[in-house]
Amino acid sequence: MVIMTLNCGSSSVKYQIYDWDKKRRLASGIVERVTQKGSVIVHEAAGKPEYKKEQDCPTHREAIQLIIEAVLHPEYGAISDLSEIKAVGHRVVHGGEKFAQSVVITDEVVEVFKSIAHLAPLHNPANIQGIEAARQLLPDVPHCAIMDTAWHQTMPDHSYIYALPYEWYEKYGVRRYGFHGTSFLYTSRRAAVLLGKKPSETNLIIAHIGNGASINAVKNGCSYDTSMGLTPLEGLVMGTRCGDIDPAIPFYIMQQTGLSPKEVESILNKKSGVLGITGKWVDRRDVEIAAEQGDKRAILCQTIEGYRIKKYIGAYMAALGRVDAIVFTAGVGEKGPIIRQIALEGLEALGVKLDPERNRVSMTRNAETIISTDDSPVKVFVIPTDEEMVMTEDTYALMNGTYDIHTRFTY
Amino acid sequence: MVIMTLNCGSSSVKYQIYDWDKKRRLASGIVERVTQKGSVIVHEAAGKPEYKKEQDCPTHREAIQLIIEAVLHPEYGAISDLSEIKAVGHRVVHGGEKFAQSVVITDEVVEVFKSIAHLAPLHNPANIQGIEAARQLLPDVPHCAIMDTAWHQTMPDHSYIYALPYEWYEKYGVRRYGFHGTSFLYTSRRAAVLLGKKPSETNLIIAHIGNGASINAVKNGCSYDTSMGLTPLEGLVMGTRCGDIDPAIPFYIMQQTGLSPKEVESILNKKSGVLGITGKWVDRRDVEIAAEQGDKRAILCQTIEGYRIKKYIGAYMAALGRVDAIVFTAGVGEKGPIIRQIALEGLEALGVKLDPERNRVSMTRNAETIISTDDSPVKVFVIPTDEEMVMTEDTYALMNGTYDIHTRFTY
Ligand SMILES: Nc1ncnc2c1ncn2[C@@H]1O[C@H](COP(=O)(O)OP(=O)(O)O)[C@@H](O)[C@H]1O
Ligand SMILES: Nc1ncnc2c1ncn2[C@@H]1O[C@H](COP(=O)(O)OP(=O)(O)O)[C@@H](O)[C@H]1O
Repeated sequence: MVIMTLNCGSSSVKYQIYDWDKKRRLASGIVERVTQKGSVIVHEAAGKPEYKKEQDCPTHREAIQLIIEAVLHPEYGAISDLSEIKAVGHRVVHGGEKFAQSVVITDEVVEVFKSIAHLAPLHNPANIQGIEAARQLLPDVPHCAIMDTAWHQTMPDHSYIYALPYEWYEKYGVRRYGFHGTSFLYTSRRAAVLLGKKPSETNLIIAHIGNGASINAVKNGCSYDTSMGLTPLEGLVMGTRCGDIDPAIPFYIMQQTGLSPKEVESILNKKSGVLGITGKWVDRRDVEIAAEQGDKRAILCQTIEGYRIKKYIGAYMAALGRVDAIVFTAGVGEKGPIIRQIALEGLEALGVKLDPERNRVSMTRNAETIISTDDSPVKVFVIPTDEEMVMTEDTYALMNGTYDIHTRFTY
Repeated sequence: MVIMTLNCGSSSVKYQIYDWDKKRRLASGIVERVTQKGSVIVHEAAGKPEYKKEQDCPTHREAIQLIIEAVLHPEYGAISDLSEIKAVGHRVVHGGEKFAQSVVITDEVVEVFKSIAHLAPLHNPANIQGIEAARQLLPDVPHCAIMDTAWHQTMPDHSYIYALPYEWYEKYGVRRYGFHGTSFLYTSRRAAVLLGKKPSETNLIIAHIGNGASINAVKNGCSYDTSMGLTPLEGLVMGTRCGDIDPAIPFYIMQQTGLSPKEVESILNKKSGVLGITGKWVDRRDVEIAAEQGDKRAILCQTIEGYRIKKYIGAYMAALGRVDAIVFTAGVGEKGPIIRQIALEGLEALGVKLDPERNRVSMTRNAETIISTDDSPVKVFVIPTDEEMVMTEDTYALMNGTYDIHTRFTY
């Protein structure tokens, strides 16, 4: 069974074509600058050279058409007929409280997504446009929705209810939802394999540190608490997002500067985090180079980033009581030994013994490594994430009628 | 030496008269409804019956006059001549970054307070009015300022810098300041005594849980991190304050409801926290009664309150590496076994062993107790706080020229 996955962002569409039976990726790529001038597709089929084409995509529909064209391309393509694709899996950022798992998309499901689009105004509208265009262009195959929030629907109410007027939860859905669910699902299952335990017996803390960053407390294989909240703004220091702050600060800044709520919200999302502290950089590699050259704000930024991860690790150790392993994943988590070192040093009293040398050399996206010492009561793993795999796997399971045993999957 | 302390809030003035040489409180009391109609003083001198008088106080000046009158009262008073008072200590909520310790008040000091009044618009204006009125009414004695923020000025920059545009720190003073400093100073010194260690050798986590609530990581006797931030809104669940939330929530609520920034800010401060979750109660005793009767929202509220304290305890254990003791203080901390139980249960893996029976019976403001088991690696103490004592002590030390050895005080 060949499965296509689509991840429609506000100005990009990422995709992958996967042959389930051969367990092989046939092609993957991205269309960038969608809805803007100068859209371009970068496509690569297994064993073939990269293919690039510029063509304006005023909507997600044209982008998906471009993808279909590339996938069928006689020279650079991956399949010879569209009918080979048996199902499409769509990434949907926000599933609200309606979806605790992936679903086959129907008109009713699309209506539900529309009714909760205000919860993720930056993401859900694009997700919905992508789904509607893809359903028109590929009308004969089932489409599935895989939601970032679904994984976290197992959280207990004391993790997801804020100390805010309770009506805000009832009327407006104000609660912690959490994101990066596919990544946490994948890495939690891999961690169970590395531990030689059943997922349902493992307690984990997983730090997904990419451009966006969040951390997840996993209890008996299920999400128990996480750092992102109503939106992906809360929690850790991110590339341009502030994470946790005093909620009084936006009001104070509006009053001091005369900025509007919209302007302040945009600064918290786009000009804060690593960019805010350093004043110059978003990419942690640039911060690393500057820190090595002695730049004080770059060093401060790394220290804050690591320190805030460390505090969440401690918080979730207390929340879970017993922890089998801490997992690092995503760009910085997989390739950033400095941040990992700052986050993990000095935790011996809590049972975490980092092996500095193992940590230093673990810098690849292509291998799972252990970076704790052999006698560390709590193991520390670096596990490259694979969100596309979860989308493919969920889509397959929904097609195959095996989705109810989802939590028993081992990736 | 007789020392007077004054704590001027926006609508109240609390005071105490203390005889330093005899180590004895001579009188204490409160003027309520200051700047409003129907102001009233409630006063009590040691060994004498309570004294009450209604008299409108349009400003803090009239309130302080009322206090002086009560203190000198032939029947209910505590001293026979105003000249017996040798110094006055004033509580100042926000000292910004200018003051890392208590100071003798000069005209210049008052100017600095005025220049940073915008940092604590609810508190500092009243503090300044009180200082100015008291200096006029008691012109011949030195006045000292004891600031809630001073204790926290030892925090390292990675604790106090937010992941926000760095200019906000430079231009507008946006950083973590922390509050409840006098309470943390007092209880940290007492904890050192109970541990039989020098303050400079003790690592502590102190939870001050009253109507307002904050928690403090103390490293080698100095503040290292704390949960309140630019303002007292950040951190734990409080009586009516929300503590930590997704910073996107206020914007989402404004957009959904049409409320103004001022209105939302006021709800976060006055209608959230325990009141927000339960919808009915601010006082934890009411919540306790309702929870016992099975009220779901009351039980949820207790669980959230305890869980959020637990997460901070874990976070600060990770931040400190080694912890000698956890301390509970203030109204709920001293008299709320249920919240303490929820916060402390299941932390055995982190070295904290609660003795449930010791916890249950520790419910007084008049004794220091240990509520961990005898073999608990991390001790847990309940220590009644005494903020007035720190104000008196600091004032005396400033007068006596011994303030530089402040951190060696044992309370
Ligand atoms: N060698 C490296 N060292 C440190 N950080 C890295 C390295 N390589 C990539 N990164 C960081 O990873 C981030 C991207 O992570 P990724 O998980 O791919 O992002 P996204 O959250 O956008 O999916 C980049 O912003 C960069 O800061
Ligand atoms: N017996 C009790 N059990 C639980 N909570 C209590 C008890 N007594 C007082 N409290 C709580 O203590 C709070 C006041 O704490 P306190 O430290 O005096 O307040 P503040 O922060 O205003 O100085 C009250 O709001 C109440 O909820």
